[in-house]
Amino acid sequence: MKSDIEIAQTTEMEPIDKIAKKLGLGANDIERYGKYKAKIKLDTYKQVLEENDPGKLILTTAITPTPAGEGKSTTTVGLGQALNKLGENAAVALREPSLGPCMGIKGGAAGGGYSQVVPMEDINLHFTGDIHAIGIAHNLLAATIDNHIKQGNELNLDPNQIIFKRVVDMNDRALREIVVGLGAKNGQTREDGYMITVASEVMAILCLAEDIIDLKSRLGEIIIGYTYEGQPVKAKELEVAGAMAALLKDALKPNLVQTLENTPAFIHGGPFANIAHGCNSIMATNLALHTADYTVTEAGFGADLGAEKFFNIKCRFADLKPDAVVLVATVRALKMHGGANGDSLQEKNLEALSAGLENLEKHIENVQKFNLPLVVAINEFTNDTEAEIKLIKKRCQELGVEVALSQVWEKGGAGGVEVAKKVLNLVDQPSEFKPLYSTEDSIEEKIERIATEVYGAAKVNFTAQAKKNIKQLAENGFANLPICMAKTPASLSDDPSLKGRPEGFELTVREIKVSAGAGFLVALTGDVLTMPGLPKEPSAEDIDINAEGKITGLF
Amino acid sequence: MKSDIEIAQTTEMEPIDKIAKKLGLGANDIERYGKYKAKIKLDTYKQVLEENDPGKLILTTAITPTPAGEGKSTTTVGLGQALNKLGENAAVALREPSLGPCMGIKGGAAGGGYSQVVPMEDINLHFTGDIHAIGIAHNLLAATIDNHIKQGNELNLDPNQIIFKRVVDMNDRALREIVVGLGAKNGQTREDGYMITVASEVMAILCLAEDIIDLKSRLGEIIIGYTYEGQPVKAKELEVAGAMAALLKDALKPNLVQTLENTPAFIHGGPFANIAHGCNSIMATNLALHTADYTVTEAGFGADLGAEKFFNIKCRFADLKPDAVVLVATVRALKMHGGANGDSLQEKNLEALSAGLENLEKHIENVQKFNLPLVVAINEFTNDTEAEIKLIKKRCQELGVEVALSQVWEKGGAGGVEVAKKVLNLVDQPSEFKPLYSTEDSIEEKIERIATEVYGAAKVNFTAQAKKNIKQLAENGFANLPICMAKTPASLSDDPSLKGRPEGFELTVREIKVSAGAGFLVALTGDVLTMPGLPKEPSAEDIDINAEGKITGLF
Repeated sequence: MKSDIEIAQTTEMEPIDKIAKKLGLGANDIERYGKYKAKIKLDTYKQVLEENDPGKLILTTAITPTPAGEGKSTTTVGLGQALNKLGENAAVALREPSLGPCMGIKGGAAGGGYSQVVPMEDINLHFTGDIHAIGIAHNLLAATIDNHIKQGNELNLDPNQIIFKRVVDMNDRALREIVVGLGAKNGQTREDGYMITVASEVMAILCLAEDIIDLKSRLGEIIIGYTYEGQPVKAKELEVAGAMAALLKDALKPNLVQTLENTPAFIHGGPFANIAHGCNSIMATNLALHTADYTVTEAGFGADLGAEKFFNIKCRFADLKPDAVVLVATVRALKMHGGANGDSLQEKNLEALSAGLENLEKHIENVQKFNLPLVVAINEFTNDTEAEIKLIKKRCQELGVEVALSQVWEKGGAGGVEVAKKVLNLVDQPSEFKPLYSTEDSIEEKIERIATEVYGAAKVNFTAQAKKNIKQLAENGFANLPICMAKTPASLSDDPSLKGRPEGFELTVREIKVSAGAGFLVALTGDVLTMPGLPKEPSAEDIDINAEGKITGLF
Repeated sequence: MKSDIEIAQTTEMEPIDKIAKKLGLGANDIERYGKYKAKIKLDTYKQVLEENDPGKLILTTAITPTPAGEGKSTTTVGLGQALNKLGENAAVALREPSLGPCMGIKGGAAGGGYSQVVPMEDINLHFTGDIHAIGIAHNLLAATIDNHIKQGNELNLDPNQIIFKRVVDMNDRALREIVVGLGAKNGQTREDGYMITVASEVMAILCLAEDIIDLKSRLGEIIIGYTYEGQPVKAKELEVAGAMAALLKDALKPNLVQTLENTPAFIHGGPFANIAHGCNSIMATNLALHTADYTVTEAGFGADLGAEKFFNIKCRFADLKPDAVVLVATVRALKMHGGANGDSLQEKNLEALSAGLENLEKHIENVQKFNLPLVVAINEFTNDTEAEIKLIKKRCQELGVEVALSQVWEKGGAGGVEVAKKVLNLVDQPSEFKPLYSTEDSIEEKIERIATEVYGAAKVNFTAQAKKNIKQLAENGFANLPICMAKTPASLSDDPSLKGRPEGFELTVREIKVSAGAGFLVALTGDVLTMPGLPKEPSAEDIDINAEGKITGLF
């Protein structure tokens, strides 16, 4: 069997001009990065939003995933290809891969099998440089903070209350907790740490910004720390928001590439799905919506995290109205939820599968809470048995929910036609999307609604710290922001070991922070890791390049 | 008067295809990055080197500079433009600007006035992403080192003898000395530090590599630290040289842009001129040489550092034979060398100027030691007086050295015609370039020749540490590498306060390190800062971007 990269390298791409043309974009609308990548000019963005009506918006989300992921990107790409195969004008909108997982354990994030975005190597390795630009804009602000303290500290910043860390696009465990400013001449010694770049608030901001002015204004609102008196200090007080925005001048422009079947693909931005909202940029989604009739996009992790944030944060901010949801389920993950252990997921196990279906049921109910029609896409793996697939389909039918087998990994667009046809039916049904809560609700109330209605918690406990945060946030005027839950993706609850459909559990919110530039409150539950580590044998060890520039070992 | 960025923004650029065409390169030879930037494909590189004879190579270097620099880049760009004006097919080859100085104190590095490379904002801000790619390839190796120790330390690495630091392309003083790996789960706690990315050995390697295989092989040779037994450990033992090379697949391709007068400009690589060799990539110089009749390039700092390394390291490795040297002198720097203090450099002072000319004389003698013809280019500043210019010219004539006024900052190529005409005469004279020393000489001997013959030292003192290093380096087979001197650029000596032409001084070599991947020995004298700091009012504070994406305040 061919590996992903082998499939990607043996596929003939179309020049990016030709892909742009499918969306009605001409040579003057794009800035080419080589033959197969382009950025869309900001003027063009404005123009298509003014001139074109939006098409239909389809969100791909998933059940509670195994650590390897259940194939949301693959399904998104495959569905885009399938819609094209059915003669529709479709585009996909995805997040940009981070180098950390690519060099670490999870691999790239460009889809898989015959449903990938290409050029796969470029997309996974730097792409058009957006994440590096975000990282350096972030680190400019970080350097400015320590420099400000060293140069006299006019703002009276408390070095022990700097909350703005540094970032790097790499899994580098040793940088989680560090001490900076050692040595006699190097400024204030203080505790600090690094996050992976995709966890930066600058990334979240870029993905929510509507134009350069909005971007700059949001960057200026980032709270970097507190004074000795406990007053928040914003990035704009350090006077580098303009320089940060200048560093992001190209990163703000959405990127256009293509799928293996030449479907246009916008890949832009990639915020973490725990401390941030986990979806590609609003600008990329808007561009796709206003240039294609059907836009398929995705949101990070399972529907409890990704879809909830997509609906309550991104759709709210961008005034987007999704038309349908594709909920990706896999036999292996459902068996895990039914009690099968990780090593045995490739073996047929109808009992575990049947028990695990309660996880799928809960995610179905959750999507329906947003008033949206959905189809369950069973993302087929090589070891799945007919009986297992049948069992999932049967349960969906009992629930009155559309279901279809998705074979896009093996067959590309042709393997997604069944899902695509159902999607085309769904989007024509009348539906009225509504977010789960009003931002006017109190902070506690918003969190409680997500926890009880989406996660299925019996109750939410706020620690003393969280209660203190809520009081202060309200005093500082941040009570009316939407909530970004930072929770384990491995369970519907805040305990990663609880599989299936946990009930009766109490969710503990230990801290609440404001991302004032992004415009949401981050409610932290459990341990949230913002800097992954490398495994014993990092994927990087397998990656190589030959004399002709051909890359191998990337997956 | 218009600022640099205003001049750059009001100039009409030609599409990069048209610039490439001037060099005989077609649409299939380049990978466009937007309309005005491109990378040259590696296949094209190979082909032009095989098929075309090299043109003439002209090096721009300078007297011992003031901290602001004396205008080497501006002169290089202006001379390229002037040669074009005279009907010659010329190209320039320059280093890529680092973001650190750009956001800090020195500003960008794209030339100045009417002798700039454009698009100036792009070149100064990320450009085509090369420096970020170098930084992340470097940091992948760094992360792998700490991960290796954490995962069992099979190589028996001594955490106290890791010499491979981390890098970021920013002036961030607080990161000079840090402690990493704090916290119970984050691996081995140890002292570490950051350098600015351009100080990375990966940068030096990229600039010396001839192709992907050479690049990968050199990356593998980087010594990252020592075992508990004192044995050097190389990057290849950590098995990530392939992934590092893959991350550099595009960074290795030289970048093509243009000057304000549409002269082709290759801008590629930018290693530090103290702990590294300070010139643009060999590949960029080779490309220019084999596509243009005249290539004007530059080397960092004054001729004692930049030109010496250009000749003894870069020309040796790449088998380049320079044809002429342009030695940039300024009235203000010469007055400084003659004892005028920094605040008074704009005032007419013939006495200080006359005394300071000894600095120019020494640099002239140094260039002549490499058997090369030269012209002194007096880079004119607004406050220079006729009498001062005359005095410099008179001294040069007494020395039998060509001299010309360069007004390229004010007048572009037209202001460089006098220099250009002299250069055209010089390159037709027979000359036989020879490096200063043979690599077969002992380490001490090589260092002594540079120190006494180029710097004018009476004697070299090796500290006990340096002597120990020399012994160990010889034992490990590194005795026959060329020398990369790390010395202050502010004086011909190792004492930055000694201006003019210091004599009788003793140079102290305190440590000698090997850059085994780059292929040279770094001899450290004085304090060498590999991570600059930000000033009280960083340039970043002035940089802004408006709604239309127009950048201001960048210089």
